[in-house]
Amino acid sequence: MGRGYFISFEGLDGAGKTTQIDLFERWLASQGITYVRTREPGGTPLGLEIRRLLFQQPELTITPLAEAFLFQADRAQHFETLVLPALAEGKIVVSDRCFDSSIAYQGVGQGVGTELVTRLSLIATQGHAPDLTIFLDLDPALVQERTSLSNRERHEQSRFDRASEQFHNKLRQAFLELARTYPQRIKVVDATQTPEQIHQNIIALTQTHFRAFNTNQSHFKA
Amino acid sequence: MGRGYFISFEGLDGAGKTTQIDLFERWLASQGITYVRTREPGGTPLGLEIRRLLFQQPELTITPLAEAFLFQADRAQHFETLVLPALAEGKIVVSDRCFDSSIAYQGVGQGVGTELVTRLSLIATQGHAPDLTIFLDLDPALVQERTSLSNRERHEQSRFDRASEQFHNKLRQAFLELARTYPQRIKVVDATQTPEQIHQNIIALTQTHFRAFNTNQSHFKA
Repeated sequence: MGRGYFISFEGLDGAGKTTQIDLFERWLASQGITYVRTREPGGTPLGLEIRRLLFQQPELTITPLAEAFLFQADRAQHFETLVLPALAEGKIVVSDRCFDSSIAYQGVGQGVGTELVTRLSLIATQGHAPDLTIFLDLDPALVQERTSLSNRERHEQSRFDRASEQFHNKLRQAFLELARTYPQRIKVVDATQTPEQIHQNIIALTQTHFRAFNTNQSHFKA
Repeated sequence: MGRGYFISFEGLDGAGKTTQIDLFERWLASQGITYVRTREPGGTPLGLEIRRLLFQQPELTITPLAEAFLFQADRAQHFETLVLPALAEGKIVVSDRCFDSSIAYQGVGQGVGTELVTRLSLIATQGHAPDLTIFLDLDPALVQERTSLSNRERHEQSRFDRASEQFHNKLRQAFLELARTYPQRIKVVDATQTPEQIHQNIIALTQTHFRAFNTNQSHFKA
């Protein structure tokens, strides 16, 4: 059993993450690849409780720093009980968000600080990072347009959904800055294209990246 | 308005913390001192939710590191919204537990590490520590005897209550080690005495410590 491969999808709400993960999942299955689909927060029973605290109790006051710690509690549980065991079994792990979201949302957006959130994240992941991160990049004005068309996540009265376009612009810039800092790991995908075009870009990126990552493994057909 | 004074009470469950805080509170009131009584976890609405996760859902798996982060989320919220504002108003804050418990329970007891939990705690408190910490010291064998006589906390199916005497011994040693490391801040009180004797010891310690801490303030009558 070899070491697995961890892919995270990042993007503002409404950028099309769910659609793309659905398509990616279908593609993995069609290739006969064993994978685990998960998310942060909420990939574990504890994570679901934390997600409920964060997104479904809008009357609950949570300071930015407390929020940052809650996301790390979710992440610590997620990595120790799900991500790392799956990787140890040689599986592909596909996660809807990982710590880049914490850096963008809490570190930059909420002002907790990039350096501190990065440090806390690496404690929570026991020093691990995704092998590949796909950032679905879309102008926040377009994101809000899409979000208003979709009611997929409308039942979650997220404190983030109510934030202004200016705030979302700040988040987008934070993700783009992360992509500039970690160009090998984080790939920016233009999310204004059609879902099928975006999907094909992601498949191409993944195959190239995976070959570079480990040519000895055969999860992906070249 | 001067800077307030922060006292935490520590001790294993059953060592008599609640009784002593009750007596201390009555004494503060009798002296006309303005104080805030609080606790960790659970001093804020978010803290109550976290407390519920930690103590009232025994079926929920929580890894030691995730647990450590949850306590810090509670603490970050507690300090920013309650402790620090009260201290800024010159109040006395009396807390049932603070970060020494995290160091003992998660750091030593659960193996997360003293150094890491201390570091996380100081992030959560924004660098602050209690001015005085009273550790009610009792042999775990006696603690368990007392706990079985009291049903005060029996409704909380704490994962800690179920731990062995050996585990509690380890926790006691962790607290005593902290007291040796921070002798100016942490005072060990023999909790085998009668509640009234313990209370008188605490009053004496508090008055002495407070005079040393700041002779310009007049919260405590000498």
